[in-house]
Amino acid sequence: MNEEKIALFPGSFDPITIAHVDILARALPLFSKVYIGIGLNSNKQALLSQELREEMIRAVYAGEEKVEVVSYEGLTVEFCSRIGASYILRGIRSSSDFEYEKAISQMNHAMRPEIESVFILSNPGYSAISSSIVRDVMRYGGDVNQFIPEQALAILKAQ
Amino acid sequence: MNEEKIALFPGSFDPITIAHVDILARALPLFSKVYIGIGLNSNKQALLSQELREEMIRAVYAGEEKVEVVSYEGLTVEFCSRIGASYILRGIRSSSDFEYEKAISQMNHAMRPEIESVFILSNPGYSAISSSIVRDVMRYGGDVNQFIPEQALAILKAQ
Amino acid sequence: MNEEKIALFPGSFDPITIAHVDILARALPLFSKVYIGIGLNSNKQALLSQELREEMIRAVYAGEEKVEVVSYEGLTVEFCSRIGASYILRGIRSSSDFEYEKAISQMNHAMRPEIESVFILSNPGYSAISSSIVRDVMRYGGDVNQFIPEQALAILKAQ
Amino acid sequence: MNEEKIALFPGSFDPITIAHVDILARALPLFSKVYIGIGLNSNKQALLSQELREEMIRAVYAGEEKVEVVSYEGLTVEFCSRIGASYILRGIRSSSDFEYEKAISQMNHAMRPEIESVFILSNPGYSAISSSIVRDVMRYGGDVNQFIPEQALAILKAQ
Amino acid sequence: MNEEKIALFPGSFDPITIAHVDILARALPLFSKVYIGIGLNSNKQALLSQELREEMIRAVYAGEEKVEVVSYEGLTVEFCSRIGASYILRGIRSSSDFEYEKAISQMNHAMRPEIESVFILSNPGYSAISSSIVRDVMRYGGDVNQFIPEQALAILKAQ
Amino acid sequence: MNEEKIALFPGSFDPITIAHVDILARALPLFSKVYIGIGLNSNKQALLSQELREEMIRAVYAGEEKVEVVSYEGLTVEFCSRIGASYILRGIRSSSDFEYEKAISQMNHAMRPEIESVFILSNPGYSAISSSIVRDVMRYGGDVNQFIPEQALAILKAQ
Repeated sequence: MNEEKIALFPGSFDPITIAHVDILARALPLFSKVYIGIGLNSNKQALLSQELREEMIRAVYAGEEKVEVVSYEGLTVEFCSRIGASYILRGIRSSSDFEYEKAISQMNHAMRPEIESVFILSNPGYSAISSSIVRDVMRYGGDVNQFIPEQALAILKAQ
Repeated sequence: MNEEKIALFPGSFDPITIAHVDILARALPLFSKVYIGIGLNSNKQALLSQELREEMIRAVYAGEEKVEVVSYEGLTVEFCSRIGASYILRGIRSSSDFEYEKAISQMNHAMRPEIESVFILSNPGYSAISSSIVRDVMRYGGDVNQFIPEQALAILKAQ
Repeated sequence: MNEEKIALFPGSFDPITIAHVDILARALPLFSKVYIGIGLNSNKQALLSQELREEMIRAVYAGEEKVEVVSYEGLTVEFCSRIGASYILRGIRSSSDFEYEKAISQMNHAMRPEIESVFILSNPGYSAISSSIVRDVMRYGGDVNQFIPEQALAILKAQ
Repeated sequence: MNEEKIALFPGSFDPITIAHVDILARALPLFSKVYIGIGLNSNKQALLSQELREEMIRAVYAGEEKVEVVSYEGLTVEFCSRIGASYILRGIRSSSDFEYEKAISQMNHAMRPEIESVFILSNPGYSAISSSIVRDVMRYGGDVNQFIPEQALAILKAQ
Repeated sequence: MNEEKIALFPGSFDPITIAHVDILARALPLFSKVYIGIGLNSNKQALLSQELREEMIRAVYAGEEKVEVVSYEGLTVEFCSRIGASYILRGIRSSSDFEYEKAISQMNHAMRPEIESVFILSNPGYSAISSSIVRDVMRYGGDVNQFIPEQALAILKAQ
Repeated sequence: MNEEKIALFPGSFDPITIAHVDILARALPLFSKVYIGIGLNSNKQALLSQELREEMIRAVYAGEEKVEVVSYEGLTVEFCSRIGASYILRGIRSSSDFEYEKAISQMNHAMRPEIESVFILSNPGYSAISSSIVRDVMRYGGDVNQFIPEQALAILKAQ
């Protein structure tokens, strides 16, 4: 069992939430390395810049050697091959999430059967927290303190 | 039991449909006042103007003292606080609706636990009627007479 | 607004859980009286006796004048008519729950359109707690302390 | 049984996939004629031009007299009336698809009760293949050979 | 198009409801013959006898030459082969129904790829009506007049 | 990374199917040891004896040192503790599966937060294959050769 187990944890992380942190905390022991991959999708306008998103995630995982933050464009499975990841890690909150993840995962499997998707369920207390709803709260000036990890919040407020 | 029970019935009402009217008719006896709140979302382009949407709803509820029409920007829970509403009223048609409403309701609960969401199921005969599908029919010049309440239709046709 | 608003909160309550208590706490202000109705279904073998289930619920709501515990056989809508309830209160946890509640609610509506079903979503932290899973834990001697309200647990342990 | 049974198989076909071909192969014996209808939706930007999409589909069904390719704007039920189709044929892959198809089908039924929607389930091996995911793969230069029927692929590559 | 198009419409029909009648009315023009097949499942205790269920269905379809009532034991696909049916007709009401039908249909497809399943969506007004809920109402002496077709009701009441 | 990663893959395996084998093949590299745990549920009558089910699974994994077959009664999380497993491995096929697995996983998490559930999606070609449908086919004498792994089938046919 001395082989490397490298996973990619892809997402927009716009912004990272405590639900992301919970998923990764629960899955991290399974892997020797997890890349948090910020997918840059030219079709979708992000609220926070790529740099800010990276910096917020790095603040959360400072000192955690197994976690590294990267940004990427293009197909997730291609990026896995480039970084040597054999696993894609995803959190699932609801059955709509599930349907979506299933479609993506099966297409990935058709293109690269050697890359396996692994799913972790959200902690029920966090299952309502999605980046898209947190973004809405931010846009309207609501309070997002309880949804964003402390270290990332500090970066965000320093802007 | 002489305390006020004020609810907000939020939506885009673009346009109001007979499904909205059915939901409100069924829930109205539970409350002392219901605000129909047209959420103005700068991201989303409405088909009908805010004024027309308000006028259409007012035509339907003329004479119903417990119902008032308002438009608002920003977070729904913040607006509830401003108008003194302790309840958010929502109709649910399908399990996709349910998943979405659940996420919104739980975020609202996290931000303002004193505001409670109350759900009413659509009458099965009306469960296919959504504003978005009615809008598509309008865009292509189809006949929407059976989907929009009579008084609102009169306003719409007078345009 | 001096009319009575009477609701039935039906279920098997085999046993009552903290998820039930959460639902009722959130809905109680809407009603002048809520009957917790233990449905006795001859087809289904309960784990706990009717008497024990009633006693456990009564222990939880001792001192709460608006709540009364009753057991009933037969159709829920018929029982509503007998006790004068115009509302059926139900909690929903998941989209499977939703599909089931929708079918039941719509049949009830067809039989007695004057009785309205009102739905409250579970607190996400409690959404995994169902009587059936709690029963499984009890059957195998697992620890259910965190799932059953304290006063009900005291009754159960005194058996 | 000498009456005509004409169906419309509507979609964006941007591009046609082997899942579309599978659905139509399974449903074709039921009908005397099936129009493959490319819906032109001014709101949605297609990846492939209308002409290319038509040509790709025609390449797949060359020699199949019962199948004809058409493009249309406006409401699907109106277009059915124009071409004399009494049936709308749709494939369903997942329960999200189902919810969406149900809403559309019920609105269609309300507007034109004489037009019936008929559903075929995807072959499980093809259930992950959707035009939208295939488009993503194409956009990022991934390999779509296994998702698009051979004759259509030849046209696409000749561009 | 002079080939026979024979379908099996399988179910427990315990009892037949107006939702079944609606599904069959909408699908009947597609086929030259539809067998309504009462599946006898030794595991499941029916409320009504096989004879009564057959008689009720025959009363509804008296005079409709394309419809025939049969009972069968064993696998549905085997029974199709025996009666020469190439299609299995099923109604779908909800996304739970869908998931179940999908699993059955795909297993059938694996065993007999030449037999195709065809799905029709319930009329939304009938989507809450299931035999199992109608049975519950009957068991408790509730009124089922509005859920069972008139001719079948006459047979049932004559018992 | 020299710590042990032990998982339990629980189920009734009544019988083991090629879908189980696919799930385990895809997850096995993540763990140093996987116990296939046949849950003995006194409430549920199995079709195949515990001994036969164990023997069938052993035949499939003969020579695979990382896999061991065990049977257990009682709560799954308790059994994990007894065998030193920190992970529960589960396959998910559909969104109904998902809802069920989510409830179980969250209760397990409440009772034993140190035990993590890990989910793998079924290969779409196998997503229709469930033990319960395979059992139905067996009961009625249908052909299950394509659903059960070859080595297990040999044991079953030798009975």
